[in-house]
Amino acid sequence: MNELQERILKEGQVLGNGILKVDSFVNHQVDPNLMDACGREFAKRFAHVGATKILTAEISGIAPALTTAIHLRLPVVYARKTKPITMPDQVYLTLAPSHTKGRMVELIVSPEYLANNEKVLIIDDFLASGQTILGLVRLAETAGSKVVGIGTLIEKVFEGGRDVLKSVGVPIESIACIKSLDNNTITFVD
Amino acid sequence: MNELQERILKEGQVLGNGILKVDSFVNHQVDPNLMDACGREFAKRFAHVGATKILTAEISGIAPALTTAIHLRLPVVYARKTKPITMPDQVYLTLAPSHTKGRMVELIVSPEYLANNEKVLIIDDFLASGQTILGLVRLAETAGSKVVGIGTLIEKVFEGGRDVLKSVGVPIESIACIKSLDNNTITFVD
Repeated sequence: MNELQERILKEGQVLGNGILKVDSFVNHQVDPNLMDACGREFAKRFAHVGATKILTAEISGIAPALTTAIHLRLPVVYARKTKPITMPDQVYLTLAPSHTKGRMVELIVSPEYLANNEKVLIIDDFLASGQTILGLVRLAETAGSKVVGIGTLIEKVFEGGRDVLKSVGVPIESIACIKSLDNNTITFVD
Repeated sequence: MNELQERILKEGQVLGNGILKVDSFVNHQVDPNLMDACGREFAKRFAHVGATKILTAEISGIAPALTTAIHLRLPVVYARKTKPITMPDQVYLTLAPSHTKGRMVELIVSPEYLANNEKVLIIDDFLASGQTILGLVRLAETAGSKVVGIGTLIEKVFEGGRDVLKSVGVPIESIACIKSLDNNTITFVD
């Protein structure tokens, strides 16, 4: 069992409806040492894919993407959910359903920072239904770039996101794979 | 001239209305090595204040707050602008005007992660009018904690935020202090 799994068992809270609360170390309060260890682990697992840029989605993807970027020494771009006034009028925009928000959210990237022929490593906090990550894949491909890997801190295997992403044809790595949250019990994949 | 100042001169864009676009290394794309260097610098400047927790505001504060947290080995909490479903019903909430959004935004922290008697170091990307940081100060003080320092990557001195924050009575440190953006020219404080 790795450090992230241990922390999930110790502090994760099952809220029902498939929601796992990890606000004390990932989503509201962040443990920087744990996040740095996860970034180092992603850097190791994706060392061979030749990424030139890391892509994530605000807000909760920023921390693991940044620590991965530090260890791989690559720039990281976070897709915005609202268009700031500093962004040009012409952007890449896609929609993805948000499970925790119960509605569609926009994912927006400026063409200034996602160009042709980048090799994009996608890093996010959760892999659940896979829809947010699929949105990031669409953004990267629309920009003429190629996704070369997908890494998430926590995969909720029972939501089937890995199957949804299979068509992308790249390595998918999760640091903690959760098989079930049934009966308020967190069970990891063996 | 430090590394951040050099980068601002090289890539910063003056958009008018006092807005400086640094989306290529701070606000949309992040340079992880630069951000790590800034975190190390904050850790050095605030080593003496005895902070027990770092507080920032999503979204753009997360990167510098996280790298500072890595170097100080402290947990970091980011105030949310919308209340996620994982947050309890009873929260600390304050309002602050957002210059770039042109409206009031909410800053929300769960009492679970901002408790009595914390010594709080506030880190953010910009110090402009000081209103967002003043909102973070109110959140910390409402929680019964004490702010012990304020650090920002870029201070727009001409917006007067430092005077607004003087009453907090703590050290305020900025890595790049901009005196003027007049005539589309970035001028640093000597």
